[in-house]
Amino acid sequence: MPPINGERLLGDLRRIAEFGRYETGVHRPHLSPQDVESRRWLAGRMKEAGLEPVIDGIGNVIGRSPKSGPRLLMGSHTDTQPRGGWLDGVMGVIYGLEVARALAEDPETAHLAVDVASWADEEGHWGGMLGSKSFTGRLTEADIDNARHRDDGTKMRDALKAAGLNKTPRIELEEGRYRCYLEAHIEQGGVLEATGKRIGVVTAIVGIFQYQLTFSGSQNHAGTTPMPIRKDAGVAMMRLYNDVMDKFPALAGPRSVWTVGKMSVEPGAPAIIPGKAGMILQFRDADLAVLQRLEQALFAIVAEHQAKGPCTVECVNLSRTMPAPMEERLLEALDEAAEKHAPGVHQRMASGAGHDAQILAQRLPSAMMFVPSIGGVSHHFTENTADEDIVLGCQVFADAAAKILRSN
Amino acid sequence: MPPINGERLLGDLRRIAEFGRYETGVHRPHLSPQDVESRRWLAGRMKEAGLEPVIDGIGNVIGRSPKSGPRLLMGSHTDTQPRGGWLDGVMGVIYGLEVARALAEDPETAHLAVDVASWADEEGHWGGMLGSKSFTGRLTEADIDNARHRDDGTKMRDALKAAGLNKTPRIELEEGRYRCYLEAHIEQGGVLEATGKRIGVVTAIVGIFQYQLTFSGSQNHAGTTPMPIRKDAGVAMMRLYNDVMDKFPALAGPRSVWTVGKMSVEPGAPAIIPGKAGMILQFRDADLAVLQRLEQALFAIVAEHQAKGPCTVECVNLSRTMPAPMEERLLEALDEAAEKHAPGVHQRMASGAGHDAQILAQRLPSAMMFVPSIGGVSHHFTENTADEDIVLGCQVFADAAAKILRSN
Repeated sequence: MPPINGERLLGDLRRIAEFGRYETGVHRPHLSPQDVESRRWLAGRMKEAGLEPVIDGIGNVIGRSPKSGPRLLMGSHTDTQPRGGWLDGVMGVIYGLEVARALAEDPETAHLAVDVASWADEEGHWGGMLGSKSFTGRLTEADIDNARHRDDGTKMRDALKAAGLNKTPRIELEEGRYRCYLEAHIEQGGVLEATGKRIGVVTAIVGIFQYQLTFSGSQNHAGTTPMPIRKDAGVAMMRLYNDVMDKFPALAGPRSVWTVGKMSVEPGAPAIIPGKAGMILQFRDADLAVLQRLEQALFAIVAEHQAKGPCTVECVNLSRTMPAPMEERLLEALDEAAEKHAPGVHQRMASGAGHDAQILAQRLPSAMMFVPSIGGVSHHFTENTADEDIVLGCQVFADAAAKILRSN
Repeated sequence: MPPINGERLLGDLRRIAEFGRYETGVHRPHLSPQDVESRRWLAGRMKEAGLEPVIDGIGNVIGRSPKSGPRLLMGSHTDTQPRGGWLDGVMGVIYGLEVARALAEDPETAHLAVDVASWADEEGHWGGMLGSKSFTGRLTEADIDNARHRDDGTKMRDALKAAGLNKTPRIELEEGRYRCYLEAHIEQGGVLEATGKRIGVVTAIVGIFQYQLTFSGSQNHAGTTPMPIRKDAGVAMMRLYNDVMDKFPALAGPRSVWTVGKMSVEPGAPAIIPGKAGMILQFRDADLAVLQRLEQALFAIVAEHQAKGPCTVECVNLSRTMPAPMEERLLEALDEAAEKHAPGVHQRMASGAGHDAQILAQRLPSAMMFVPSIGGVSHHFTENTADEDIVLGCQVFADAAAKILRSN
């Protein structure tokens, strides 16, 4: 099977981490000057590897193989979270590049073709996964017209113009070109580390249902308003959240997660009874039936609190991302390669985070593979993975790719 | 008993509301240009009423009576909350002015002396009740050196200089000058309105105990961190707050109030498990024993949650303001005057809000009286009281003042 070059792989990862270096991590939001520079560098490395690179009209970098043999698509993203990690996303892109090089260098696999992609805006500075959505035909020109930077409201059109991409066409998936899509990524959680595993074979990417809950009461003086006549929106929010935390465990699946990451009260002064309160609740599972059950439970809790008063509760669904199951025969190829290089220390698992593979999976048979995150940390500049795990993962990925391309 | 002039009273209130008018209310923070102008106008009105006005080095306006008979001090504050109401504070100052005029106009009471004060910064733009603290000898020069505006950080020294008060001495209470201190104020709550009463005789100003609660857990990805290993600081905060709301009712007095007006989670993103959370809890009661009981209960809840984990909880006391009981014989004079002018529609009650009277009460026998707030609204430009209630309250106040001054 094609031997990858670990030094070359790590060297490329260290080199691209210089674009936007921040402490031990990277600050490289999509279409920032550092991001645009890194895309040009990546296109150059693809060219050196014998691929034909294009940076398209949304910022996707796609390195196409000129070979005519069976072909697969590999990729992930090179944009990062603000002050994020050095591997989140980019590792999967450089894996693709290294696998393309390793296949080409091994006479047994030199005829096999791999296209490599870095999908634009996976981290959602302009909307989220806009590159893979564009490639799979799910992004309109109007969507781009409307896209603005989540922090400063800059128009995406202006940022594309600044990057010299405003006249460049977008590239869409060519029907029949690929056998499948493969993506590698850091785990971003602590499951592999906790169980002493080195490879995770991803069975599905979880669906995410997300809701805005808004509580309305009466803003009043905290000293002069007796308890019995208060309509405290902060209390209403706390009581409902408490009910969610009490009732969800019995309804959830073994891997379900639910989170309130954002909550606030208005006006937010110590001596004023909150008249408004709001929180965002999300839950995730790989099983749609579980997501639907949790949604029904949430609606029932909301209805109960609404009926009880004294505050009103409004529950608005913000998004429902469906679970994306991965392709079984691809998982088997990954299992087999993992067992060869990391016997007994690989496992199947769902991905709790979203990935471009969930977008690609709607058009291509897809699979993902994880390597361990040290301490489970991600979206922070201290994110890291052991060098030997990075190298091991790439070898597993290369073997699986060769196997898939050589099968009938 | 001295008949007050309702038209003159309302006219003065309407006139001073023009300094900093905002919608139907007033925006007149202490030492703002409008506030300084209103103090000069007030000093002029005091002079016309036969008082000898001084604006002192902190901004207190004190109109001293030249008469030698028994003397009392009346006052409140003319500064306002941002975009606050037209009566909050200033009504009590103009009551003092009108009572001084009414006493002087009635031959039976013309020998009685009333000094009238507008205390600086009751609303706390520079610290809170700085004027009455200064007058009672509780404010040092260093306190003023350190005082900064809560919104923009301006030094109070600079604002005093801009107001032309930097070279002016501060006036302190002259021992033995007054029989007592009387203050009238709008209720700022809905108790009088709800019970159909027109006068509230204040038995005590509640004490306020206030705490910062800080919860520390582990910030993590909301998709990849399994529920059993989470340390969600937002959940920890919600669970503790829930316990407070469950346990306090059985321990509280009939008029206790407790409030969380401010709460937040960090970093505050929907897909990130909060690693930090914080809230400010305060409770108020007129009975120190009740406040101490609630504090013990809070400490017990904190200890229990701290022991249980998985997050840590820190509870820091921010302030303990002691309850200020009012003087019984003054309350009896107010009861009697209220019964004469508003038979059956007055009641005794505690003040849930803080007032300058709680500062003065440390040096002088003190009492307070409330008139109803329409809809219980205050600290908002829509705050209001019916004209006839304003006039009635002033007459009750004048009668009580005369009674107190004429008693032995």
